[in-house]
Amino acid sequence: MTRYTFACPMRWSDMDAYGHVNNVRFLTYLEEARVEMFVALHREQQARAATGTSEDAALLEGGVLVARHEITYKAPLVHRTAPVPIDVWVRTIGGASFELGYSVHDDEGSTVYATATSTLVAYDFRSARPRRLLDYERAYLERYLEA
Amino acid sequence: MTRYTFACPMRWSDMDAYGHVNNVRFLTYLEEARVEMFVALHREQQARAATGTSEDAALLEGGVLVARHEITYKAPLVHRTAPVPIDVWVRTIGGASFELGYSVHDDEGSTVYATATSTLVAYDFRSARPRRLLDYERAYLERYLEA
Amino acid sequence: MTRYTFACPMRWSDMDAYGHVNNVRFLTYLEEARVEMFVALHREQQARAATGTSEDAALLEGGVLVARHEITYKAPLVHRTAPVPIDVWVRTIGGASFELGYSVHDDEGSTVYATATSTLVAYDFRSARPRRLLDYERAYLERYLEA
Amino acid sequence: MTRYTFACPMRWSDMDAYGHVNNVRFLTYLEEARVEMFVALHREQQARAATGTSEDAALLEGGVLVARHEITYKAPLVHRTAPVPIDVWVRTIGGASFELGYSVHDDEGSTVYATATSTLVAYDFRSARPRRLLDYERAYLERYLEA
Repeated sequence: MTRYTFACPMRWSDMDAYGHVNNVRFLTYLEEARVEMFVALHREQQARAATGTSEDAALLEGGVLVARHEITYKAPLVHRTAPVPIDVWVRTIGGASFELGYSVHDDEGSTVYATATSTLVAYDFRSARPRRLLDYERAYLERYLEA
Repeated sequence: MTRYTFACPMRWSDMDAYGHVNNVRFLTYLEEARVEMFVALHREQQARAATGTSEDAALLEGGVLVARHEITYKAPLVHRTAPVPIDVWVRTIGGASFELGYSVHDDEGSTVYATATSTLVAYDFRSARPRRLLDYERAYLERYLEA
Repeated sequence: MTRYTFACPMRWSDMDAYGHVNNVRFLTYLEEARVEMFVALHREQQARAATGTSEDAALLEGGVLVARHEITYKAPLVHRTAPVPIDVWVRTIGGASFELGYSVHDDEGSTVYATATSTLVAYDFRSARPRRLLDYERAYLERYLEA
Repeated sequence: MTRYTFACPMRWSDMDAYGHVNNVRFLTYLEEARVEMFVALHREQQARAATGTSEDAALLEGGVLVARHEITYKAPLVHRTAPVPIDVWVRTIGGASFELGYSVHDDEGSTVYATATSTLVAYDFRSARPRRLLDYERAYLERYLEA
């Protein structure tokens, strides 16, 4: 299975008074992984379409909404200046939604800090309504679809 | 079933570029609900023990770690200056852990913005090891235990 | 001098790994004080105009941009469940901008955690251009103007 | 004058409901620039001392506290996946404190988003007291001292 790997930059202020990355901040890390993954998708499509659509316009037009998150914390994570790797893959693809799986781990992959699953719903922010996945979105997601 | 209701103050900056409260921020709201709930517990216990333990000392000594979150988003939430109500209850109680259920809703309870479940593990931050739930913690949790 | 006092709710996650409220978070507290102050202003104006403008619409139409902040930290602030008081007053009023002064302090006013000054510029988000202060904005600010 | 340049990773959630990076978040960017700058300093010193001190231990032992910030916003900044450059330099060095200057700008340096100055106080977190700057800290800061 092909996984999308995101090198997630940490911030010192991601740590809470316990001296570990706050559990909530992990969800921000997953959001960053999705944003980079979808920006990469829109860049590919823009190259095809040769439109001038900006990153954020693309994100806002062909956006997705988060419908659900499930996250399990397995080991405490302490701040460091080097990014923490996050593997992302696609668990299921529906007509208007899809599920992503994530693993936040150390460089060797020997320690997993958290695993998570998100349900994302394709959404048209101009009409403010859910929408079907576009063909190029589906094709992109299928690259990372688990067996 | 008795529910613990937390009036969660919102911040304008909880909204993201979509103009809604960011999905990740909901987990911070749940954290705040837990903190108030546990501070109330420790205040009761301190009243009994008449110790001078401070709020945060109490939180750090008899603390809990988050082992898992599951959250489903049902409706977009926009910032307002009035707090948003969060109901919290106890779903299960184990020897060293428990599950909380949450509902984030409007004042009338007609719109539910999100529902969630968290697994919390009792933890001793001095010995840096999991610990059994203390009797007064268990008694407190049982008040909010669902049928 | 009349001061606008905001009871600022704290969040446990406002603390950083040093166990104190992170210095950056103080600026969020000041933002919250401004938001409440301006929402109160818009509510008054709406009562006069009897418009149905929502809080956030009001904020977006007759908004202000931050041009400058200056903050001095005087004592460490630790999380507590009770809000921390913030006094806000107006230092200067110009044609299209104004300066706010702030003091973040304990309930007795014996300990000051931080003092700050912000320069705000009146901005029209529909035309994306600076604008002159409206008469009712100016009248409101004058109530809190320092001698 | 030698400047320390930090490539600051942005997060999509740094943007607020106005669709720009929230003014408060800029202070987090400056914090990240300082953290990287001080971690680099401690790495150099550790290489000399060949101690096993970890990044965060180093930060906690030879730490600094923020005494003051001054920031001026010059242009709106929108999220992008590429880091935003921040130049950092030293404005003054005292016995137990120093001032940093910052410029947050675009890749060409043609647009400056914000300029800022921070006063940092050397602090010993074990004794919880201010401390004199260590020789190797002073020597490091002098590299970036403005004329």
